[in-house]
Amino acid sequence: MHDLVIRNGTVVTAADIFAADIGVDGGIVTALAPRLSGRTEIEARGRLVIPGGVDSHCHAEQRMSGGVVNADDLFTATRSAACGGTTTVICFALQPREGRFADIVPEYAQRATRCAVDYAFHLWLRNPSEQVLAEELPALIAAGHRSVKVFMTGKANWLDDLALLRVLAVAREHGALVTVHAENWGIHQFMAERLAAGGFRHPKFHAVLKPAIGEREAVHRIASFAELLDTPIQVFHVSAPEAAAEIEAAQRRGARVHGETCVQYLALSAADLNRPGFEAAKWVFGPAPRGSADRHALWDYLKRGVLDVVTSDHAPVNFDAADGKKRWGEDAPLDQIPNGIPGVETRLSILWSEGVAPGRITPCEFVALSSTNAARTFGLYPRKGTIAIGSDADLVVWDPGRTDRVTNAALHHAVDYTPYEGMVLTGWAETTLLRGEVVHHKGRYLGREGQGQWLPRAAYDWLRPAGRFPSGYDPFGQRVTHPDLQ
Amino acid sequence: MHDLVIRNGTVVTAADIFAADIGVDGGIVTALAPRLSGRTEIEARGRLVIPGGVDSHCHAEQRMSGGVVNADDLFTATRSAACGGTTTVICFALQPREGRFADIVPEYAQRATRCAVDYAFHLWLRNPSEQVLAEELPALIAAGHRSVKVFMTGKANWLDDLALLRVLAVAREHGALVTVHAENWGIHQFMAERLAAGGFRHPKFHAVLKPAIGEREAVHRIASFAELLDTPIQVFHVSAPEAAAEIEAAQRRGARVHGETCVQYLALSAADLNRPGFEAAKWVFGPAPRGSADRHALWDYLKRGVLDVVTSDHAPVNFDAADGKKRWGEDAPLDQIPNGIPGVETRLSILWSEGVAPGRITPCEFVALSSTNAARTFGLYPRKGTIAIGSDADLVVWDPGRTDRVTNAALHHAVDYTPYEGMVLTGWAETTLLRGEVVHHKGRYLGREGQGQWLPRAAYDWLRPAGRFPSGYDPFGQRVTHPDLQ
Amino acid sequence: MHDLVIRNGTVVTAADIFAADIGVDGGIVTALAPRLSGRTEIEARGRLVIPGGVDSHCHAEQRMSGGVVNADDLFTATRSAACGGTTTVICFALQPREGRFADIVPEYAQRATRCAVDYAFHLWLRNPSEQVLAEELPALIAAGHRSVKVFMTGKANWLDDLALLRVLAVAREHGALVTVHAENWGIHQFMAERLAAGGFRHPKFHAVLKPAIGEREAVHRIASFAELLDTPIQVFHVSAPEAAAEIEAAQRRGARVHGETCVQYLALSAADLNRPGFEAAKWVFGPAPRGSADRHALWDYLKRGVLDVVTSDHAPVNFDAADGKKRWGEDAPLDQIPNGIPGVETRLSILWSEGVAPGRITPCEFVALSSTNAARTFGLYPRKGTIAIGSDADLVVWDPGRTDRVTNAALHHAVDYTPYEGMVLTGWAETTLLRGEVVHHKGRYLGREGQGQWLPRAAYDWLRPAGRFPSGYDPFGQRVTHPDLQ
Amino acid sequence: MHDLVIRNGTVVTAADIFAADIGVDGGIVTALAPRLSGRTEIEARGRLVIPGGVDSHCHAEQRMSGGVVNADDLFTATRSAACGGTTTVICFALQPREGRFADIVPEYAQRATRCAVDYAFHLWLRNPSEQVLAEELPALIAAGHRSVKVFMTGKANWLDDLALLRVLAVAREHGALVTVHAENWGIHQFMAERLAAGGFRHPKFHAVLKPAIGEREAVHRIASFAELLDTPIQVFHVSAPEAAAEIEAAQRRGARVHGETCVQYLALSAADLNRPGFEAAKWVFGPAPRGSADRHALWDYLKRGVLDVVTSDHAPVNFDAADGKKRWGEDAPLDQIPNGIPGVETRLSILWSEGVAPGRITPCEFVALSSTNAARTFGLYPRKGTIAIGSDADLVVWDPGRTDRVTNAALHHAVDYTPYEGMVLTGWAETTLLRGEVVHHKGRYLGREGQGQWLPRAAYDWLRPAGRFPSGYDPFGQRVTHPDLQ
Repeated sequence: MHDLVIRNGTVVTAADIFAADIGVDGGIVTALAPRLSGRTEIEARGRLVIPGGVDSHCHAEQRMSGGVVNADDLFTATRSAACGGTTTVICFALQPREGRFADIVPEYAQRATRCAVDYAFHLWLRNPSEQVLAEELPALIAAGHRSVKVFMTGKANWLDDLALLRVLAVAREHGALVTVHAENWGIHQFMAERLAAGGFRHPKFHAVLKPAIGEREAVHRIASFAELLDTPIQVFHVSAPEAAAEIEAAQRRGARVHGETCVQYLALSAADLNRPGFEAAKWVFGPAPRGSADRHALWDYLKRGVLDVVTSDHAPVNFDAADGKKRWGEDAPLDQIPNGIPGVETRLSILWSEGVAPGRITPCEFVALSSTNAARTFGLYPRKGTIAIGSDADLVVWDPGRTDRVTNAALHHAVDYTPYEGMVLTGWAETTLLRGEVVHHKGRYLGREGQGQWLPRAAYDWLRPAGRFPSGYDPFGQRVTHPDLQ
Repeated sequence: MHDLVIRNGTVVTAADIFAADIGVDGGIVTALAPRLSGRTEIEARGRLVIPGGVDSHCHAEQRMSGGVVNADDLFTATRSAACGGTTTVICFALQPREGRFADIVPEYAQRATRCAVDYAFHLWLRNPSEQVLAEELPALIAAGHRSVKVFMTGKANWLDDLALLRVLAVAREHGALVTVHAENWGIHQFMAERLAAGGFRHPKFHAVLKPAIGEREAVHRIASFAELLDTPIQVFHVSAPEAAAEIEAAQRRGARVHGETCVQYLALSAADLNRPGFEAAKWVFGPAPRGSADRHALWDYLKRGVLDVVTSDHAPVNFDAADGKKRWGEDAPLDQIPNGIPGVETRLSILWSEGVAPGRITPCEFVALSSTNAARTFGLYPRKGTIAIGSDADLVVWDPGRTDRVTNAALHHAVDYTPYEGMVLTGWAETTLLRGEVVHHKGRYLGREGQGQWLPRAAYDWLRPAGRFPSGYDPFGQRVTHPDLQ
Repeated sequence: MHDLVIRNGTVVTAADIFAADIGVDGGIVTALAPRLSGRTEIEARGRLVIPGGVDSHCHAEQRMSGGVVNADDLFTATRSAACGGTTTVICFALQPREGRFADIVPEYAQRATRCAVDYAFHLWLRNPSEQVLAEELPALIAAGHRSVKVFMTGKANWLDDLALLRVLAVAREHGALVTVHAENWGIHQFMAERLAAGGFRHPKFHAVLKPAIGEREAVHRIASFAELLDTPIQVFHVSAPEAAAEIEAAQRRGARVHGETCVQYLALSAADLNRPGFEAAKWVFGPAPRGSADRHALWDYLKRGVLDVVTSDHAPVNFDAADGKKRWGEDAPLDQIPNGIPGVETRLSILWSEGVAPGRITPCEFVALSSTNAARTFGLYPRKGTIAIGSDADLVVWDPGRTDRVTNAALHHAVDYTPYEGMVLTGWAETTLLRGEVVHHKGRYLGREGQGQWLPRAAYDWLRPAGRFPSGYDPFGQRVTHPDLQ
Repeated sequence: MHDLVIRNGTVVTAADIFAADIGVDGGIVTALAPRLSGRTEIEARGRLVIPGGVDSHCHAEQRMSGGVVNADDLFTATRSAACGGTTTVICFALQPREGRFADIVPEYAQRATRCAVDYAFHLWLRNPSEQVLAEELPALIAAGHRSVKVFMTGKANWLDDLALLRVLAVAREHGALVTVHAENWGIHQFMAERLAAGGFRHPKFHAVLKPAIGEREAVHRIASFAELLDTPIQVFHVSAPEAAAEIEAAQRRGARVHGETCVQYLALSAADLNRPGFEAAKWVFGPAPRGSADRHALWDYLKRGVLDVVTSDHAPVNFDAADGKKRWGEDAPLDQIPNGIPGVETRLSILWSEGVAPGRITPCEFVALSSTNAARTFGLYPRKGTIAIGSDADLVVWDPGRTDRVTNAALHHAVDYTPYEGMVLTGWAETTLLRGEVVHHKGRYLGREGQGQWLPRAAYDWLRPAGRFPSGYDPFGQRVTHPDLQ
């Protein structure tokens, strides 16, 4: 007799799909077998049971580009996640440009106790001072924050190449993963200058302001740094096929360069910006939406495993509201329109709808892309990302046959619009369980504020470097390996 | 109370690794949970429990190149498999060059009832007559033989391009997978002529007789045919990195071209042929062993998923015995030395030893490469290839810590040598279970002749084509899709 | 005082463009300088003076596919060449499928004495018998026929892989260049079967009968053979960008694989086949016209030097006449429509019009592509292909500013149509000189039958192999070079 | 009767090689013909006559890295050039880091009047201020300085990405070519930090201080900028095959990215740094010498035309002398050893010796790589870079059969060593003529200070952009071309 049993469902993991009941005790999966019985039982006949989604790229309660504050706080964002079938999010602790992590991490950690699902932070590093790199960052990594986010573009965020290298070196030495917003800052500045000079202010010109070639450039650059230092990275929100091609080339050279993409790059395109007036700003996010043909190419990179994680990059900025895009952007130059769209709740349904329904990916691949791979990449596995004995009972009863229309009214975030309004999706989360507790059922949020737990992360094997130094010098072991030098 | 429980082991699948007991009833996995109890219990503390190996490339009881008959019959070969942790093999029903499958399939099926593990056949097609393609082959496919083997080289085996295309077309129309020995026949003939003219007879010259460029050529050719007809294939025993690169290129173009390699290409090289006298013939197999540097490159293709199955290509030819290489080859021209080495029993240990032990692949990747992917590719999944509720209880208690030396005396095949004699391996099968019955324990065979079952294969989803026709013509649906034609 | 002076023109060679008079004595260029005087003077102010075109791919007086005989005999074809600015052609001596060259070369040589411009033959090899390879071919090469044409497709023409390798080996050993019609014969047969079965008979389906993928396959195959044997080849009439990409890949591997394309692949496309009824057969030639977008890609390969020769593949088949396409093809299956279009006279104007006029290539590149490179490739340089002291005075006064419309009535071949009818071209040959004699002026033929000379070719440096054997075996020097073999 | 005739030589241009006398009048080539007569005659029987070398990368009379001043002034450097067969050099006018070109161009132009051969300047831009970009640079370009040099590395030299883009944009708008020292500044700083921390001070560690991967990165970055802005660039001193591969990739994408390499990357390698003590610093130059295997790969890129100019990067720094490397570097950290080696005089002999003598390139390719292509690239053609009617009579009588040993004593620069000391070379300049005047014969300098002329450069066609904007925005014509935007 288990605490809870999910009955008669079809279990899907990254590798397998099989009919079994799932027994849960103490919030942990304790049995997979036919005909289990539990004090509580959830019927899942005709449904799939998948691991709760892991969305490793989610902004909440943060000051964003242009000084806009997220429409979502950590509670509303994670409530929205739960209602979309996502039970783990990784958010961001944002270092002040001139300050230290000590100034914000404790407060952010405190605020995050309101989360509705389990969570971790990426350390968003903006001030690579000697003190930060030598003391703060190692201490935070040791305390369980094993991922660092860096930007290659954006006035308030970008780091120069030496700083990037130093951060990568610290991450390698102390066992953390660096994630990267890879676009070229110089190109963005140049294009902004030129577009401004040409009088191009309509939000649709966002599609040319930050071109794919700038993403390709930055990906090649950061991949080169990762190669030089023999350390793994994850490139965030890969949107352009040519950028994905650079990731693949790095992988062929033996570098451990991994790529994430987001559902918006699979489901939206520059064509969505063709709206009259400032309305188009609803589709302004960075990297910019690419050409409509590029979406198909991205699927090929997902199929071949070059890109292996699909997130939402939930960046909830209101449109009409007082602190929305409209107010901050309508009269602003093109490059000052606040970037970002919400999406944590719609992520899984869009991925299923565009991926599994038309036969592009299998249900197992869906689970890998939306949950397992992110859990592995960020040191959350095997607690998260699978349905296996001993894992957290983060389970989603998934209805692959439900077809419904997206409306912002039905979503649980605090944003005043969704860029997917009216889109018809197939495949929806019916019930979401967080560590064995139902937090969502058929569009109703049933959890409570603060139900989420922080997920400290120990050093994990996935980060293990390979010991290849293309320079002929190992700067960590301080050995020269150049074949021509005696 | 289960029929059988494997206790305290760590279960490994292609995606997951977790501690759990495994319950088995009626030869099927029925429970994964801690602390199960069974009428029979096997203790696996400190051990891994992995799915029984699937070796999809295994010769037995067959006339081979040069007219040599396999040293192993179907029982001894599969007994050897069982003792190495492999519970499913796919062997070959060899069509006579001038005859029909009807002449041999029934007899072969009858002989195979002696098998010690579960089995299927590849239909080795050598006579692509109209009758065979129009009638026999479709009927055999419908009867559950869903793979066809074709050769691009070898006097008695090779098919010309038109025949290859016709076979691929039949396979697509009736739902079978074509597997291919991809080397260029003209190059082999030319090199044999020239080497003979130059007086090169030592078996070591086998390494130049069938060069990598001939494999690359044939892979590009058959991949082009698969692309043209929008149908999946598996290229057998990819040995050269340049051939693997052609597979990768085909995958990038969207073709469903898959690649198998064999442990000998990961563990042996042309350098092994440097033995005095005819002894070198013990390392003569086709494709030929490649350069010692090529082995490392093959691992990269395995890691990235370009190659996804590792088999033995068990081709058991004696060396000294009356029907051995020595007798048939010692005075023969270079190109008539019988090709082939045994390996079905050593496969898993070599793959673990060269792959997992030095950190090149993870235990999950080991399971995928040695079992799950082959099962998926050939329509045996989910019955075979995983440990999941409802799957056959083909289980191996794997001792990752055991280090031991290979000796032919300790192997269970009927061949008079092993090319791995004296090699020290880490990771050995301790106990093998076939559908819940112990067939091997610590080097002793405990099964019985005829214990294996034939595995008929229904049409399976993995074969589904994509609907892309690069020619601008769909020869199946008979539609012209060329963008310039009205 | 020279025999002849071309005055006031601008001389263009593959490297240079400069104003100079050209002095000619005894049919040879003897002076480049300002203000020369001659017994005869030709005014070229405002004109370019370019080397006479070298068209290394020209059929005449030959039985073609389908048994059709060329509409042009060797005189009318070469008269047409002269009027288009071409002063050297390489035609074909066609070996009977079951016979010997001895059966036809003397007769063909005799017939060729009627040529209007200088000429050589490719030996079109169709019967690779031992006697032919061991005796005839070496003797013909030694006699000055230093190029051999082979086919990879076509019932009456194709050679199997062993034969191709043997021919390449003879060519390497005796100093000849092999040129190749590279398409896959099996694919052509398969597609013909399927299109016939589907009832696709309209000539436009020629565009899918012989798809680009079959060209890519054959190019990779023959390039692999050339690599294996370390010998140069020229791939004829490269039409598909993917085939050109294979040539580039071979060049990157260090192979001396060269590529020719033809003006029709730059100027025509599958879209031209969209004509009602059998009219479309006027655009049936092999390889088939490719997609309209492919033309642009071919220019990139020309610019980068991957393809370096542009010819006409003049294959003059009438349309309406008694022996024309109409009669032979109208009721025939799709794959029996006679292939081929005329083009020797329009070649230079189309290349200028599509290449130089819109700025894709420079005048120097035009000279290289249409004259110099072919002369170098086939051992005719420096006698042909440039304007330099000591070279034959094959000179064309070229009017880059003339724009005119193509009409078949104005052409000098014996074919009853041109596929370029009505096309407006910029850049025309105004005057053509063969060894100092005017043979054409402003559309009027002024030469005489038999004015052309045969061009015997000595062994030439361009053929020198590199000494790289990717197999690890040099079959010519009979040395093993495999790094792992002792 | 010409002023001067070179008799009986064999003329070599980038395309042709033919026997002819050369007539010269007023310093201009006026005749190519047999048996010319002149008031002065130079006998060249058994010799080649080639165009005077164009060395487009030459430092003289300049403050270099580390504050060292060149050992050569503009006279001694160009005297050395003349004695090696080079008649045109392009040097550098170095903008102060905080200053303007106005501060130095007039003075530098004045000093350059001492030059012994014809010359031009690259504008070495270090201060991309608004005034410089908007006013100075356009004015200097209009005045005939049509090339701009920028650095991507080096504390005193490097420009950030926005500055690079702005410079490229000015160059495109005003018709100049940008040349680039492409290495990653961050990598150099990082490696210097780490090597210093590790105590690596021996000059040989220069080979790992600035690794090939940093060159590859920068080449991809600047090539991306050139693509974005549709403007041609020349990448200086490409030393690593992986960097050349990026240039090739850019060319395949249609970008006009050109590459120069230097003889030291063909003739020297990191192995040369294995010398005891500070002696190794004689081989310290930037980019660093690469692995010994890389040299062979560079030849392949030259053969295929990916790299098309070979210069000396003459950077004359003494070793022992008061202002030499020894004094500035011996106690300095690794990254402060002054970089640079002399080489303007040995360039042609090394290129012939390593290129033509062993059959890697033809004499025509030698001329193209050492003279013609540089002249074309930098707008000096047809005045320089060829032997054609109307070109400057910059002629070198070249002795391809002379084999001799390099000694610093025999060179004409003012540097106290040569890195090629003792190297035996085949192929030497016997006589050098500058505009028809003999300035060097058999190792003796026969010219005079100030004999060289400045070469102003008009706008030239080679710079013409293609009109392709991968961003979907033409920042010059201010048009949006993105296919998805309405």
